[in-house]
Amino acid sequence: MSQGRIAIVGTGLIGRAWSISFARAGLDVALFDPQDQAAAVALSLVAGNLDDLDKQGLLRGRSPREVLGHIRVAGALADALDGATHVQECAPESLQTKQELYVVLDAAAAPEAILCSSTSALLPSAFTARVTGRHRCLVGHPINPPHLVPAVELVPAPWTSPEVVERTRSLMVSIGQAPVVMRRELDGFVVNRLQGALLQEAFRLVADGIVSAADVDISIKKGLGLRWAFMGPFETIDLNAPGGIVDYIARFENMYRTIAASQERLVPWRGELAQRIDAQRAQVLPRDSLGERQNWRDRRLMALAVHMRKAEEEHGA
Amino acid sequence: MSQGRIAIVGTGLIGRAWSISFARAGLDVALFDPQDQAAAVALSLVAGNLDDLDKQGLLRGRSPREVLGHIRVAGALADALDGATHVQECAPESLQTKQELYVVLDAAAAPEAILCSSTSALLPSAFTARVTGRHRCLVGHPINPPHLVPAVELVPAPWTSPEVVERTRSLMVSIGQAPVVMRRELDGFVVNRLQGALLQEAFRLVADGIVSAADVDISIKKGLGLRWAFMGPFETIDLNAPGGIVDYIARFENMYRTIAASQERLVPWRGELAQRIDAQRAQVLPRDSLGERQNWRDRRLMALAVHMRKAEEEHGA
Repeated sequence: MSQGRIAIVGTGLIGRAWSISFARAGLDVALFDPQDQAAAVALSLVAGNLDDLDKQGLLRGRSPREVLGHIRVAGALADALDGATHVQECAPESLQTKQELYVVLDAAAAPEAILCSSTSALLPSAFTARVTGRHRCLVGHPINPPHLVPAVELVPAPWTSPEVVERTRSLMVSIGQAPVVMRRELDGFVVNRLQGALLQEAFRLVADGIVSAADVDISIKKGLGLRWAFMGPFETIDLNAPGGIVDYIARFENMYRTIAASQERLVPWRGELAQRIDAQRAQVLPRDSLGERQNWRDRRLMALAVHMRKAEEEHGA
Repeated sequence: MSQGRIAIVGTGLIGRAWSISFARAGLDVALFDPQDQAAAVALSLVAGNLDDLDKQGLLRGRSPREVLGHIRVAGALADALDGATHVQECAPESLQTKQELYVVLDAAAAPEAILCSSTSALLPSAFTARVTGRHRCLVGHPINPPHLVPAVELVPAPWTSPEVVERTRSLMVSIGQAPVVMRRELDGFVVNRLQGALLQEAFRLVADGIVSAADVDISIKKGLGLRWAFMGPFETIDLNAPGGIVDYIARFENMYRTIAASQERLVPWRGELAQRIDAQRAQVLPRDSLGERQNWRDRRLMALAVHMRKAEEEHGA
């Protein structure tokens, strides 16, 4: 099981992206989707992506043909699970769907296979409690798309075996993802908890008329986001005081306490505020151009992934 | 006054970086520092930076020699202020120092000159209240260093003239900075308010043993930070639901409300938690390597600035 074989269950946007992450690392991937033809369509969409990724050097030295050779369409769930050591579940975000699916997966997968959910919001305890092999279930939540954005949140249920977490962590590292290992499950995992804390303040600043939504974006994308993109929040502050993080805390904790006192109040996002921000966004991006802009985002993410790899090679990670 | 002449008062790290931002845009900059020789030393340090910036194409098409030709050392404050239309104050972060300095600057600068403070934490009302020309005083807080990180927070005091804010905004845009215009002053301005909100959650997650400090950093630098670095938080969510931000709010506000309910409690940063995170950081970065790592950060920031410029040219901003 040094290499492992992967079954991807559910071949929408996330399942497709996962298949690239696993296959470009040389692992064999079987795609299954209960919808007729969905897996075959997914495979052809993946094939269409690989040339672009290859041109940018994002296939870990493998040719598009090689990568594609590691992905196959499975006609039935049992076929996909046959020999799989890791099942990456990418089903719709419905609690009931996942509750039922994990019973099925547990019954059909080999005993040593890990059952890993891509869910972004459901706690693993909520859909694996009644699964016989619940010790082998956990969440592995990607920040989409995983083949361009490496972070994956690993979230154990209370009954998930530590060895299952460790094997998943090790698998993710081996394919070039960057696992974030939670010691216990918590609403929003890590990324959305951090995002939520920042968003509450962003919405509050706009609600209070302090600053426009566009200027909030500038303050991050032309400001702090440029540090967070290669250091994260703790390294950023560790390097922002002569004596490191302890010194930073001594200098600035009080300022942040003062700020925090005015950050307790939540403002409602929906309704008037949502409309106001939507109108501000519409001035920058016409509402019928969202799809086009999503393609732009994906091109920028790809370019940024290329930059990060080169910058790490040249200057160190 | 279409171009403007700049006086930089205080020539430490921030004053030096500002001089590059202004001079590479073709503006004449006079450097003054009350400490003997400090401005001359600053100029020679700037000179030492310009070749690197030139190699990376970060001098807006000007040669290092041309840029340097726009910067001069002023022997006296009056000399620096002579003909200046914009004064960028970079004095130490002491309230009393700034209170006294603004009275002096206001008395000595030409009537139409704008007095702009680089302070990161003092509210403009706190050090300009007793200044006769307080209408022309505001904060223009860079995210250091401004020649690599474009965002600048413009913070008016209650008495700052709107025309002064607008002239400063326009100046900053003309030199390639990215102004964030606050409609009124507020502790922490925008960037540190957003950073503070995220940091409170980051410290809480580590305090509660949910995740390590290193994994918090991974969740941002290998995850969400890669989007925030070129989109900011609002555009990120605008593109994360089929119907844009209104749709996103309809889908996810409740989840973020649930999360927020467990984000009210503040944990103390100093003491045991500070020591624990410091120990975690020390495993990644020995505490005697902070200076070296700051140089690495600056190289990465420079490389990222180059990438962002190219990516905007190729794919659009």
